[in-house]
Amino acid sequence: MPRLRIYSNVRLTAAAETLLNAGLVGHERVEDLRFAEVALGQPDPEVVLSTVGIRWVQVTSAGYTAYDREDLRQALRARGAVFTKSSAVYDIPCAEHLVALMLAHVRRLPEALANQGGPRAWPQAPLRERSRLLGGETVALVGYGSIGRRIADRLRPFACDVVAIRRVVGGDEPVPTVALTDAAEVLANADHVVDLLPANASTERFFDAPRFQALKPGAVFYNIGRGTTVDQSALVAALVSGQLGAAYLDVTDPEPLPPEHPLWTAPRCVVTPHTAGGHHDESDRLVHHFLGNLEKFLDDAPLEDRII
Amino acid sequence: MPRLRIYSNVRLTAAAETLLNAGLVGHERVEDLRFAEVALGQPDPEVVLSTVGIRWVQVTSAGYTAYDREDLRQALRARGAVFTKSSAVYDIPCAEHLVALMLAHVRRLPEALANQGGPRAWPQAPLRERSRLLGGETVALVGYGSIGRRIADRLRPFACDVVAIRRVVGGDEPVPTVALTDAAEVLANADHVVDLLPANASTERFFDAPRFQALKPGAVFYNIGRGTTVDQSALVAALVSGQLGAAYLDVTDPEPLPPEHPLWTAPRCVVTPHTAGGHHDESDRLVHHFLGNLEKFLDDAPLEDRII
Repeated sequence: MPRLRIYSNVRLTAAAETLLNAGLVGHERVEDLRFAEVALGQPDPEVVLSTVGIRWVQVTSAGYTAYDREDLRQALRARGAVFTKSSAVYDIPCAEHLVALMLAHVRRLPEALANQGGPRAWPQAPLRERSRLLGGETVALVGYGSIGRRIADRLRPFACDVVAIRRVVGGDEPVPTVALTDAAEVLANADHVVDLLPANASTERFFDAPRFQALKPGAVFYNIGRGTTVDQSALVAALVSGQLGAAYLDVTDPEPLPPEHPLWTAPRCVVTPHTAGGHHDESDRLVHHFLGNLEKFLDDAPLEDRII
Repeated sequence: MPRLRIYSNVRLTAAAETLLNAGLVGHERVEDLRFAEVALGQPDPEVVLSTVGIRWVQVTSAGYTAYDREDLRQALRARGAVFTKSSAVYDIPCAEHLVALMLAHVRRLPEALANQGGPRAWPQAPLRERSRLLGGETVALVGYGSIGRRIADRLRPFACDVVAIRRVVGGDEPVPTVALTDAAEVLANADHVVDLLPANASTERFFDAPRFQALKPGAVFYNIGRGTTVDQSALVAALVSGQLGAAYLDVTDPEPLPPEHPLWTAPRCVVTPHTAGGHHDESDRLVHHFLGNLEKFLDDAPLEDRII
């Protein structure tokens, strides 16, 4: 087995660090990215760009906006280097989080919790009347990768109508899928609109005032993609006007969202502090995913979550 | 088609009342239960007992505690009368509500909402660390009928280990099932314990102090059965001591739960005001279910949700 120089700037629990060290016996850990062949974590993209010895970068996130640049892509391709992300670690937690938000909405949990934290009345009749079932409701997944797939899997027994919207339709998606450019009708009919878009120039403020206006009145908007994909003033306006039934945001722009930001107090708006991908054994799973890919890298086998 | 005298005391929306009337053309609506052949709603059990002309009672609920009496059972059987409930209307909403509560717990939604209603900080790191996945966790369904079945269906893609506990094991359950008398080991190993028990003499305070003490430390307790199946003081004590990780209660004893009741403020205890079965088109679905059964009754076909 060739000995590799491996850099990591990922902050791990002590247990996961031990796991990583055990998996790297026979390799060399380097402190300086410029001497690395393999980089794990969130390595500085400028240094990656200028370090010709780097053969493989694995970012410890599902998003990779900071690395989504033409110069970096070209440099890595020219070197025959590999770029991978850690979606497999985050797709299930994100999917569970999104289904949690959808079910919390239809079962009126935010209202029940507000009652418990407030008057402690017994609003049984109004909450039952406002409660809904997911069955028969239409869910538009805007952006469809591994998270979208996991969401669709988990929604199957609830019998919703799930439609995926993506930039390029592959044709092999397990749910009906339309191109982003043809999405108007799907978006106009969806009861639940789920923003899974990554942050890049083409998705910036994709959800703007005209887009919110074109949704079905009372639609519920969810964002577990990136905060920059939404015009947040337009979102607040759509909540205030009643055009949107509710919004559930795990990502905002900026993060942390300042305490005085209007999204915190917009009507029917729920904010979770970018926790969708989180889970107590995240560190362990990041290490397992990396070590699995390291084995594949050494065997010249296809790596999981490969971008380049 | 024989003309039937039909009594109903169910409160319906105007639309559902119209639907019911349309479905009953050719029959006679009677105002007095004593002259009825068919009774829909929550007819007075004493009057049902003394009215020999009643051939079929359909209660508009999933529970039927008030009718679960030996004298009534004997009287109905002696007359060849039928007794049905409306579980098919409530099982899916109850199952969705329970999965909503489970996911809200593992994804820490009550904490996120408390932050939003309070300091509006950004507790990303602690919430991610406390967040969990349902995958691999063990769920004990205590009481297993149509609601339990629907819950197990919905949990399947989440890859939990679901075990059912019921009074009498049928042998044809689609999940591993043990008898209530042999449930100790299952209960001691479950991460999520779901009380789906009906209210009757044998289930009264089934979950008492020794039972809570025998659960896995940190287990999460859910009740969408009936409030009387729980010793609520023991429940509060198990939350205060930390033996229970959390409790999610849709039913309490009494209901409404008085504002000063300790369950409202017990640590990590969430109360929804008996809304699990509710949904905005409940009235319509109750009528559809009844009219479907009426057709079967007239055809001498097996009725849905038949108890006697």
